[in-house]
Amino acid sequence: MVSVDLNCDLGESYGVFKIGNDSEVLKQITSANIACGYHAGDHNVMMETVKIAKAHGVKIGAHPGFPDLHGFGRREIMMSTREIYNLTVYQIGALAAAAKACGTNVVHVKPHGALYNMAAKDHKVAEAIARAVADVDSNLVLFGLAGSCLVKAGKETGLQVAHEVFADRTYLTDGTLTPRSDANAMIHDETLAMKRVVQMVKEGKVEAVDGTDIEIQADTICIHGDEPQAFNFAVKLRETLLFEGIEVGRSWNAK
Amino acid sequence: MVSVDLNCDLGESYGVFKIGNDSEVLKQITSANIACGYHAGDHNVMMETVKIAKAHGVKIGAHPGFPDLHGFGRREIMMSTREIYNLTVYQIGALAAAAKACGTNVVHVKPHGALYNMAAKDHKVAEAIARAVADVDSNLVLFGLAGSCLVKAGKETGLQVAHEVFADRTYLTDGTLTPRSDANAMIHDETLAMKRVVQMVKEGKVEAVDGTDIEIQADTICIHGDEPQAFNFAVKLRETLLFEGIEVGRSWNAK
Amino acid sequence: MVSVDLNCDLGESYGVFKIGNDSEVLKQITSANIACGYHAGDHNVMMETVKIAKAHGVKIGAHPGFPDLHGFGRREIMMSTREIYNLTVYQIGALAAAAKACGTNVVHVKPHGALYNMAAKDHKVAEAIARAVADVDSNLVLFGLAGSCLVKAGKETGLQVAHEVFADRTYLTDGTLTPRSDANAMIHDETLAMKRVVQMVKEGKVEAVDGTDIEIQADTICIHGDEPQAFNFAVKLRETLLFEGIEVGRSWNAK
Amino acid sequence: MVSVDLNCDLGESYGVFKIGNDSEVLKQITSANIACGYHAGDHNVMMETVKIAKAHGVKIGAHPGFPDLHGFGRREIMMSTREIYNLTVYQIGALAAAAKACGTNVVHVKPHGALYNMAAKDHKVAEAIARAVADVDSNLVLFGLAGSCLVKAGKETGLQVAHEVFADRTYLTDGTLTPRSDANAMIHDETLAMKRVVQMVKEGKVEAVDGTDIEIQADTICIHGDEPQAFNFAVKLRETLLFEGIEVGRSWNAK
Repeated sequence: MVSVDLNCDLGESYGVFKIGNDSEVLKQITSANIACGYHAGDHNVMMETVKIAKAHGVKIGAHPGFPDLHGFGRREIMMSTREIYNLTVYQIGALAAAAKACGTNVVHVKPHGALYNMAAKDHKVAEAIARAVADVDSNLVLFGLAGSCLVKAGKETGLQVAHEVFADRTYLTDGTLTPRSDANAMIHDETLAMKRVVQMVKEGKVEAVDGTDIEIQADTICIHGDEPQAFNFAVKLRETLLFEGIEVGRSWNAK
Repeated sequence: MVSVDLNCDLGESYGVFKIGNDSEVLKQITSANIACGYHAGDHNVMMETVKIAKAHGVKIGAHPGFPDLHGFGRREIMMSTREIYNLTVYQIGALAAAAKACGTNVVHVKPHGALYNMAAKDHKVAEAIARAVADVDSNLVLFGLAGSCLVKAGKETGLQVAHEVFADRTYLTDGTLTPRSDANAMIHDETLAMKRVVQMVKEGKVEAVDGTDIEIQADTICIHGDEPQAFNFAVKLRETLLFEGIEVGRSWNAK
Repeated sequence: MVSVDLNCDLGESYGVFKIGNDSEVLKQITSANIACGYHAGDHNVMMETVKIAKAHGVKIGAHPGFPDLHGFGRREIMMSTREIYNLTVYQIGALAAAAKACGTNVVHVKPHGALYNMAAKDHKVAEAIARAVADVDSNLVLFGLAGSCLVKAGKETGLQVAHEVFADRTYLTDGTLTPRSDANAMIHDETLAMKRVVQMVKEGKVEAVDGTDIEIQADTICIHGDEPQAFNFAVKLRETLLFEGIEVGRSWNAK
Repeated sequence: MVSVDLNCDLGESYGVFKIGNDSEVLKQITSANIACGYHAGDHNVMMETVKIAKAHGVKIGAHPGFPDLHGFGRREIMMSTREIYNLTVYQIGALAAAAKACGTNVVHVKPHGALYNMAAKDHKVAEAIARAVADVDSNLVLFGLAGSCLVKAGKETGLQVAHEVFADRTYLTDGTLTPRSDANAMIHDETLAMKRVVQMVKEGKVEAVDGTDIEIQADTICIHGDEPQAFNFAVKLRETLLFEGIEVGRSWNAK
C-alpha cells in the first residue's frame, strides 16, 4: 500500500510568547519537528511538546536551526561548516535528552528555515549536517527537500533519508522550489494543491512551472499548522489522502 | 589505596570571549565539568573541550547552570523546580551529544554557580536536578557539596554521588561552607589548605571555624584553574597528594 | 475637573512572536509604557510602537525591565543597585532615540514586572531607578505603585511622580497590593472594580481587605489589554470614568 | 597645522568576559568607539567605559553592530535596511543616555564589523545608517572607510563625516581594502606602516598594491589595542605622528 508521512514544525513557543496550536496539529500528522531552543522553543516547551507528541503517537524529530530567536532562524548567518556541525549536534542532543526523560526517543532530524534552505543548495552545509546527525545517532532519518543536496548528503553518509515535498509550492524544471519572490511560487487553489500531492505520492511526479512533468520523490509532506486556514488545509489533505487509498504514515522503513 | 578525584570547571569561553587555560588545567585534573552553553560555553567550545579532555584521559561531566551568560550563572534566578528539571535535562543532553560525536561519553554532572548553591541548601531544587540526571542517564555520577542536600537527593534518587570539598574554603560546624561575606571564609595559606585537604581525604574530617573537628567526605576536590596563582596551587596540591600516598583519581567506583 | 491617566504596557512583541493588540488598546489609553528590548520588545517593535502611539496622541513612556526575555521580566534577578541603575539608563536611552527619530519624545518611565515589584518594596532599588531616570532626563515622570518606595524615591530625587492604582486588585491595610497568592487578591466583579476606581480617583480612598478605608492616590490606572476580556474591561472603564465626570488624561502637570 | 584623529574600539567586555586593555589604550587615542551591547559590551561596561573615556578627555562615539554577541558582530546577517536603521537608532540612544548620565555626550558613530563592511560597499545599508545617525542627532560625526559608500551616504544626509584609514592594511587601486583572504592584505613591517600613514595624512595619497599612488583622505586612523603588539604599535605610531609634526586630534571641525 502506498503511504506518505505528514510532518509539521512544532514547539515553537518561547517563554510567554506563544506560537501555533500544537495539540490540534498533532491529531493530523505523523512526524513532529520540534524546535530545539535556537531559533524557537525552550527547555520547557521542548519537554511539553515531546510529551504531547508521544501521547498522540506522533514520531519525534529534532528541528535544529540557526541561533537566532529574533529572526526565527529565517536569516542566513555566515558560519563555518564546522560550526554548523557543532550546532546541529548540540540541538539534537538537547532534544534527545528530553525525549529520553519522557521515555521516548528522537527518530528524525529536519533542519529549519535558513539552515534547511542552505543545506538544500550547498553541498558542504548539507554534508556538515548529515555528518552531525550520523555522529550523534546513525539510526536517525534525515528529512530534506526532495532531490536536494541535503538528502544526497544524507545518503552518502549512510543515513536513511526522507524526501520532503510541499503542497502549496510550485517547482522549477530542475526540481527545486520556485523562489517565493516569483509570482507563481505559491499554489493558492486547495483542490489543485491536493491533486498535485496525490500525484507526487502515487506517480512520483509533478508538473513544473514550465508545464513539463518532473520526477519527484514524496516521502513526507510539510504541513503548516500555525494559521487556522493552514490547519484546515491539513485536515482536508489528510482526508483526501485516505480517500485516495494513501496511508498516512512512514513508508521508508519498508524501503 | 586512598584516592581522591580532582575536578575543574572548563569550557567557559564563549565566541571570541576567552576564559581559562583549559589545556594546562587538563594535565592536573581527573574530572572536567564542561559548561553547556547556558551560563558559559557554546556549541563550538563544548566540542573542542570534549576533544581535549578525551585526549588527556580526563573524565567528562556536564556543568549545567542558569540561562544567564551575562551573570555567568552566579545570580539566583527564581524559577519552578519543573523548569530547573527541564534546563538540567537540556544541558546534559547537549553535552552528551557532543561527547557521542567525539567517541566518548559524559559520566558525571555538577551544577554550576547559583544552581549549585541553591541545590546545596534547597531540597526541592536538589531533587529536581537529581531526577533530571537520573532520567537522562541513571549511570551518571552527581557531584555536590559534601554532605549537602544535593548529594542526599542524588542518593535518594538512586544515583552514585561524589562529595565535593574545597581546599581554599573554611567550614561551619554544620558542614556548610562559611559564607564568602565572612572574614574567615577563605584560606589564603597554601600550606594549611593542603594540610586540610590531606586530612579530609585520609581521615574524613576537617577543623571547622569554631575549632572543633567535623566529619566530611572528600570524594572530589574542586580546583580553580583560571588564574595563574590558582593553577600553580593545583599543581602543588597534586604533588602533595601523591607525596602523601593519595592516588589522584576516582575512588567511588570501588565503593 | 478631576482627571486620571490610563496607562498600558505596549510593544511587547519580539521578532515573529506577537503579543497584544496595541492598535486597539491605544484608542483607550493616555499613556503607553513601551518595552525596551530587555524583557520584551525589540528595535523594530519599539520604533513601530512609538509611531502608532504618536499617531494616537498617546504619551510615550519607557518600560525598562530585567534582561530576561525568557522570563518576560517577571523573575527577580539578584543584581547590584549599580547594575539596576545602568540597565535603566540603557533602556530609557534606547527608547528616547526611537522617539527622537519619530519626531516625538519619551515623557515618563514605568519599570516592568519584577523590577517594578522590587522597586515598590526595596528603597535601594527604588533609589537606583529614580536616579537613573533623573540623570537621563529630569523632566521624566516616574510611575510607581501608589504610595510605594518607588514614588517616594522619585520625589526625593526631585522627579515628578505618578501614583499608579489597579482596578482588578485588592489592597492590604498598609496600602500594598494583596499578594496574588492570596485568594482575595483579585477583583473579578467588573462593576465593583469600576466603583472602586471611581472612589479612588474622586475620594482618594479605597476599601482594604479588612473592611477599613485607606487613603490612596490615583494618578494613573493600569490597564491590561492583551486579553479580549481585559480589553473590553478597559473600554467599559473609560466609559464609566467619563460618565462619572472624570476626565481621562494626565492630571499631574496641573498639580 | 596638519592633524589626524586616532580611534579605537573600546568597551568590548561582557559580564565576566574581559576583552582589551581600555585604560591603557585611552592614553593613546582621541576617539573611543564604544560597543553598545549588541555585538559586545553591556550596560555596565558601557557606563564604565564612558566614565574612563571622559576622564581621559577622549571623544565618545557609539559603535553599533549586529545583534550577535556570539559572532562578535563579524558575521553578515541578512536584514532589511529598515531593521538596520532601527538597530542603529537603538544603540546610539542607549550609549547617549549613558553619556548623559555621566555628564558628557556622544559625538560620533562608527559601525562595527560586518555592519561597517556592508555599509562600505552597499549604498542602501550605508544610507540606512546615515539616516539613523542624522535622525537621532544631526551633529554626530559619521566614521566610515575612507572613500566608501558610508562616508558618501553620510555627506548626502548632511552629516559631518570622517574618512578612516588603516595603518596595517593595503589598498586596491579603487581605494578599497585588499580582502584579508589575499596574501598581501596586511602590512607587517611597522616602519613601512607608519611611513604610509604619514603620507596619507600629509599628502592625501598612498601606494596601492599595483604600485600606483591613489588619493585617500585620512581623517582618523583605526588603532587596535587588544593585543600587546598592537598596543605597542599604537604607542609608536603616536610618537611618529608627533615627530612628523602631525597633531593628534580631530581636524574636521576646522574643515
